[in-house]
Amino acid sequence: MKKHNFSAGPCILPQEVIQKAAEAVVELENSGLSLIEISHRSPVFIDIMDRATSLALELLGLEGKGYKAIFLQGGASTQFISTAYNLLENKAGYCNTGTWSTKAIKEAKLLGEVIELSSSKDANFNYIPKGFDIPPDLDYLHITTNNTIFGTQYKVLPETSVPLIADSSSDIFSRSLDFSKFDLLYAGAQKNMGPAGATLVVAKEDALGKVSRQIPSMLDYKTHLDKDSMFNTPPVFAVYTSMLTLQWLKDLGGIAVIEKKNEAKAALMYGEIDRNPLFDGFAAKDDRSIMNATFTLNDATQKERFESMAKEAGLNGINGHRSVGGYRASMYNALPIESVQVLVDVMKTLEQNA
Amino acid sequence: MKKHNFSAGPCILPQEVIQKAAEAVVELENSGLSLIEISHRSPVFIDIMDRATSLALELLGLEGKGYKAIFLQGGASTQFISTAYNLLENKAGYCNTGTWSTKAIKEAKLLGEVIELSSSKDANFNYIPKGFDIPPDLDYLHITTNNTIFGTQYKVLPETSVPLIADSSSDIFSRSLDFSKFDLLYAGAQKNMGPAGATLVVAKEDALGKVSRQIPSMLDYKTHLDKDSMFNTPPVFAVYTSMLTLQWLKDLGGIAVIEKKNEAKAALMYGEIDRNPLFDGFAAKDDRSIMNATFTLNDATQKERFESMAKEAGLNGINGHRSVGGYRASMYNALPIESVQVLVDVMKTLEQNA
Repeated sequence: MKKHNFSAGPCILPQEVIQKAAEAVVELENSGLSLIEISHRSPVFIDIMDRATSLALELLGLEGKGYKAIFLQGGASTQFISTAYNLLENKAGYCNTGTWSTKAIKEAKLLGEVIELSSSKDANFNYIPKGFDIPPDLDYLHITTNNTIFGTQYKVLPETSVPLIADSSSDIFSRSLDFSKFDLLYAGAQKNMGPAGATLVVAKEDALGKVSRQIPSMLDYKTHLDKDSMFNTPPVFAVYTSMLTLQWLKDLGGIAVIEKKNEAKAALMYGEIDRNPLFDGFAAKDDRSIMNATFTLNDATQKERFESMAKEAGLNGINGHRSVGGYRASMYNALPIESVQVLVDVMKTLEQNA
Repeated sequence: MKKHNFSAGPCILPQEVIQKAAEAVVELENSGLSLIEISHRSPVFIDIMDRATSLALELLGLEGKGYKAIFLQGGASTQFISTAYNLLENKAGYCNTGTWSTKAIKEAKLLGEVIELSSSKDANFNYIPKGFDIPPDLDYLHITTNNTIFGTQYKVLPETSVPLIADSSSDIFSRSLDFSKFDLLYAGAQKNMGPAGATLVVAKEDALGKVSRQIPSMLDYKTHLDKDSMFNTPPVFAVYTSMLTLQWLKDLGGIAVIEKKNEAKAALMYGEIDRNPLFDGFAAKDDRSIMNATFTLNDATQKERFESMAKEAGLNGINGHRSVGGYRASMYNALPIESVQVLVDVMKTLEQNA
């Protein structure tokens, strides 16, 4: 039985993408070679990389606006230090909205002055702080647009005159934003884009090359921008599969279309969390993520029954992160609303028979 | 028609590994989920990572000797800076045997004093320098065991009392060495181990943690050693496929068995290069790589015919790197001797009809 995959990442991908990726591992487009045997310098792979980066810019509405997209390795975790290497000359501002922001702050501090402009640590990161001051002389302001672990999400971007950079690992390509407000965006592939092992960086070209320090080649965004993600061997399989996922999203109608679907899934999910007396939402209502719904069961005696019913229904990956406990339903782009309905039905049944 | 894949990397992998990897992309071991949809924190993936790292140590004969194996991202290129971050306190010695050594030297210089102890740049890196002095007060000596581009390879490791570290990207798991002579070894997966996107690092645990600088978390080997390669999301597909390849090698009999096969392929290849008056070997005979045979055609009028015959015979990836020109036959573990025979036959036919 195919499971209903609510995993927080790596996570569900479109079934047709999975099929095509598997076929390409056997043989890539009648080339007589497997996808994972071809040279990254071959015309067929250069074309794949071009399609992947062009699709990323197109879907974000950033084509022709001075941006470039590159595929790197190392996950968002590597970008925590790379962003500081590339952009932090004097001081930077960070908004601390969870585990990943905290890690980003820790790494940036190795290279310069870091000001924590806001934090929701006081309430175990269950909300997005608003209304804080942003000094105008910062090199940049760093935010985490969606907090996978805590289930919170910026609904409105901070208004600022300083360059805005963001870790958008868990909500990129899921909702419409004016992406030209960012000087730099990065995202691990393994939520809405593809398998683990590729990391997308989208940068305004003129935002780079301004710091005075020497940057290790592999952490220097300009190295990779100038070589079109081919400075060294890219993660061929992850880039190809990301390209397929981005093409799937484009064929579906792009971000505006998937956003409506994501909103419908989130409405169904949060509706049940709020209605069902057995469950409580974790995140502040105004800041609820449409990607990751975090909630707890308020009757401990029902725990075993809920989890066994969930398992029986084929629900996978709904356990909450250890920092929050309870449950988490990650509803990334490829998750069908039918899977959310199955989870909601289990919650209803639990209540009825409680 | 399946091609004879002489690509320098990414390169040929065992056909059964490719089939199993493709099947796992559809569904991993009856889990109801694709390999690329599972959580890296799931027991099934933790087991895959354990098997991959254990197999790596076992094949290298390093089990129970104080070593740990980890899978990272970023390729050997990232290890150029990471090795210096983790091991370079005062000064390090490097042997410059080609493009990758040169890059490793460049990155290490960002963090400390680097002494180029030997170089074959004077002869376009067509040999391995020997007999140079190694100061006893170095933090480490860095070598590139096999030079993919130039087709040279250390047959004997430098004798030294300082810690030896190596980039073994293009010959790891291909031949028997006393691997306990290394304090640290690293290798991009995309030659003898798996698809692009994973990087193996094998380190003696007590060699780490000795430098005084603060190391960015993602470049700190101890971060990853302590978390068993799970500090952040690992490249799941590349690790799984590497595990399959290492299991394939173990089932075949391990390094000693594959080494004999590799030597037979190399003997066949170099035998023809030396015999055929139309071709010249590039690398010094004593230093010839059993992985990458570099050679040139000495009669320019035969170029077009040779290349069209090669294409007709299904030979892929034999063009030399632009730094050397001519041709390069990469004969990694998974390449059958039959493919080498096809190339040799083309060379013979070219000569007979010249």
